[in-house]
Amino acid sequence: MATGRLADKRVLVTSADAFMGPPIVELFRAEGADVTADDSLLLGADEPQQLVDRLGDLDVIIANLDLAAYGAKVADIEDAKWLEGFDAMVHPLMRLVRAATPRMVERGGGSIVVTGSSSPLRRMRPQAPSYVAARAAQNSFVRSAGHELARHNIRLNAIAQNYVANPTYYPPELMENERFLERLSAEVPAQRLGRSEETAELALFLAGDSSTFIFGQLIQLDGGWS
Amino acid sequence: MATGRLADKRVLVTSADAFMGPPIVELFRAEGADVTADDSLLLGADEPQQLVDRLGDLDVIIANLDLAAYGAKVADIEDAKWLEGFDAMVHPLMRLVRAATPRMVERGGGSIVVTGSSSPLRRMRPQAPSYVAARAAQNSFVRSAGHELARHNIRLNAIAQNYVANPTYYPPELMENERFLERLSAEVPAQRLGRSEETAELALFLAGDSSTFIFGQLIQLDGGWS
Amino acid sequence: MATGRLADKRVLVTSADAFMGPPIVELFRAEGADVTADDSLLLGADEPQQLVDRLGDLDVIIANLDLAAYGAKVADIEDAKWLEGFDAMVHPLMRLVRAATPRMVERGGGSIVVTGSSSPLRRMRPQAPSYVAARAAQNSFVRSAGHELARHNIRLNAIAQNYVANPTYYPPELMENERFLERLSAEVPAQRLGRSEETAELALFLAGDSSTFIFGQLIQLDGGWS
Amino acid sequence: MATGRLADKRVLVTSADAFMGPPIVELFRAEGADVTADDSLLLGADEPQQLVDRLGDLDVIIANLDLAAYGAKVADIEDAKWLEGFDAMVHPLMRLVRAATPRMVERGGGSIVVTGSSSPLRRMRPQAPSYVAARAAQNSFVRSAGHELARHNIRLNAIAQNYVANPTYYPPELMENERFLERLSAEVPAQRLGRSEETAELALFLAGDSSTFIFGQLIQLDGGWS
Repeated sequence: MATGRLADKRVLVTSADAFMGPPIVELFRAEGADVTADDSLLLGADEPQQLVDRLGDLDVIIANLDLAAYGAKVADIEDAKWLEGFDAMVHPLMRLVRAATPRMVERGGGSIVVTGSSSPLRRMRPQAPSYVAARAAQNSFVRSAGHELARHNIRLNAIAQNYVANPTYYPPELMENERFLERLSAEVPAQRLGRSEETAELALFLAGDSSTFIFGQLIQLDGGWS
Repeated sequence: MATGRLADKRVLVTSADAFMGPPIVELFRAEGADVTADDSLLLGADEPQQLVDRLGDLDVIIANLDLAAYGAKVADIEDAKWLEGFDAMVHPLMRLVRAATPRMVERGGGSIVVTGSSSPLRRMRPQAPSYVAARAAQNSFVRSAGHELARHNIRLNAIAQNYVANPTYYPPELMENERFLERLSAEVPAQRLGRSEETAELALFLAGDSSTFIFGQLIQLDGGWS
Repeated sequence: MATGRLADKRVLVTSADAFMGPPIVELFRAEGADVTADDSLLLGADEPQQLVDRLGDLDVIIANLDLAAYGAKVADIEDAKWLEGFDAMVHPLMRLVRAATPRMVERGGGSIVVTGSSSPLRRMRPQAPSYVAARAAQNSFVRSAGHELARHNIRLNAIAQNYVANPTYYPPELMENERFLERLSAEVPAQRLGRSEETAELALFLAGDSSTFIFGQLIQLDGGWS
Repeated sequence: MATGRLADKRVLVTSADAFMGPPIVELFRAEGADVTADDSLLLGADEPQQLVDRLGDLDVIIANLDLAAYGAKVADIEDAKWLEGFDAMVHPLMRLVRAATPRMVERGGGSIVVTGSSSPLRRMRPQAPSYVAARAAQNSFVRSAGHELARHNIRLNAIAQNYVANPTYYPPELMENERFLERLSAEVPAQRLGRSEETAELALFLAGDSSTFIFGQLIQLDGGWS
């Protein structure tokens, strides 16, 4: 039920063709937002600043950054793979928030929503310490920077999700894997995988005018897993 | 902007004339809900069951239970005041959820939203160990029972709020108290008290059909305080 | 290896014949402490005060309070059983700390160690929302009161344990139960039940002079479970 | 009171001349350990492996890695400074644990103690989002890798400290700064800075044979701050 809840909002969605980008772009447009769907990975140190400069005033940024979980055991972690998690998810997040802040301060506020992970909040199976450490750095940045930005009425919050359908972590073929289905049933109290639309709805809540006193929080969306 | 987001939903709000009851009743009615606003405190052991039996099928329950924070230092805690916190906030919550569960299981789901507190999540000033222990028991029950109920598609979640305007904890005269305003500025990153409507908006999100993969969570609404 | 680490310390251990009492009494005596091993359950509202008054000056109190976990599902919780958890574990803890505080303040400090539970920190299987809510209230009281008492150099901390051998929660016969052993292997990273002496060692660390900057903390001792 | 609690233990302390190195080296030697005090910063990707290979069998590693907190506001973070936090504290930690694991697995266990920070666990003042994000990645790695290593009887735990005297974060001259002393009194329940020996005592507890059921934990040592 689209109700114009983002009418006239200027929104940037990063990695818009990946992870939680597509359902968010779709719902936000249906709700009236003017969405820039950017597909770059923002790996270059200057890319976030250039992107933000190009777009000018923004009401909302969906910092959608992902990388397939790297599941090596501690003794087998490869340096390049370990660093890649920070390069793809942590550093671009800082750079994007840093780039967006001055203009949002000037405009009197804004909302930045990170499509993150609840994996650091509980022991995962199988374990993926590389992935989890990078997601934890994201979460911690959201909390710490989120507190600082609150006084400027900039809401920096994260969707801490797990077990939500998306092509990066839960490709469709996984749903035919017996072992995965058993794990889903054992690990997820809701007994099902989340739908990507459920993430989009939470993103909408955090982006719009219904969450104006929520700052620096991780909202867990994972069927009760964490 | 009312958009019928709770059209046809049968809702019970407890202690409806206190704490976060009034703004929730108002917003939910504006969104099309059929709201029963019950004013009793549910202190009697059988009252929650009787209330739920009287109402029959419910889609949503707002478990709104409060008691003014009892700020005694540890050495000065009075037994009666200590017990009162559990009697007013903890035991009625369990009894209300217990009473509501069988019928919600039968109907295939439902949403129970607790108007709770983020005070157990951080050190408070001034301290109120009695109050905080009771709110922590509430929070823990939400998480633990919330995980159990997830498999029945019953969403039990809490609004973990602090520094939101309401007559129980932040009566209007407090806003003229210099020391309180200093504390607000030092403690709350957002530099202001929340509006009661901001709690009602979060309650709406958790009650309605936009949060269907969130189970057993505490959503913090406190201007970045915790 | 006993090394007199508690020489000349006056120690009270409550419920000394139950839960973690016996191994703590044994180790503490071996380390030179003057231990009062009290066997009462402290259920009466005045008992903690009377006990503390009778003993006079104390350096250390081991607040050892337990009750078998009550594993009813939410819909089946019996009021009497629910209340019993708070009566046996939560209210006596507050009363004991309250009673001990004035004299410890006068003497310039002291250490109170709660033999508590990490069960509120993670989803348990099977679930026991009654038990978990009472343990959460204990944990929260430790944190909140622990912060207040820190300025008086009174260290109030808790051992948040799980999967440690003790007659209340893990009677010896359980170790012959196939399903329990499977759960142990699946749930506890250390792949074994803790030994009761391991709790006693942590209690010794928290009681003695090696932890003098730790206040209001829950130290998790559970083989990596939480 | 030295009591040979680390007799015959082979211990490596990294950055031994900095942060918490000196008091740990001193106490551990007094307790009978054979300590290798390595002063390098382990910034090179291969250095941790080379160091561990050179030393051979180790019972205990103190992963002591630090960097002065970089206190820039979000909008002012410099890329080089941001990355430096991860380069100095996060990546060397992973590499050190990775290097140490195979031999410890072979020997049936070991203990790795990280001298870390509780700063990610609470809102800091003044804020330092760069520093906090790196420390959070450390903490998360300890938890995640700590769970994996538990089954090999390798205890990976962290001292999550704050407000403990050390030349990196609390140089002696700070104690003469009025504003710092006011902050100390307002922020730290214990009303004082911790002594570096108090960290060394906790490191001893975690390194030795008294904490054999503690895995993947962050033990908070901060005068009740967090």
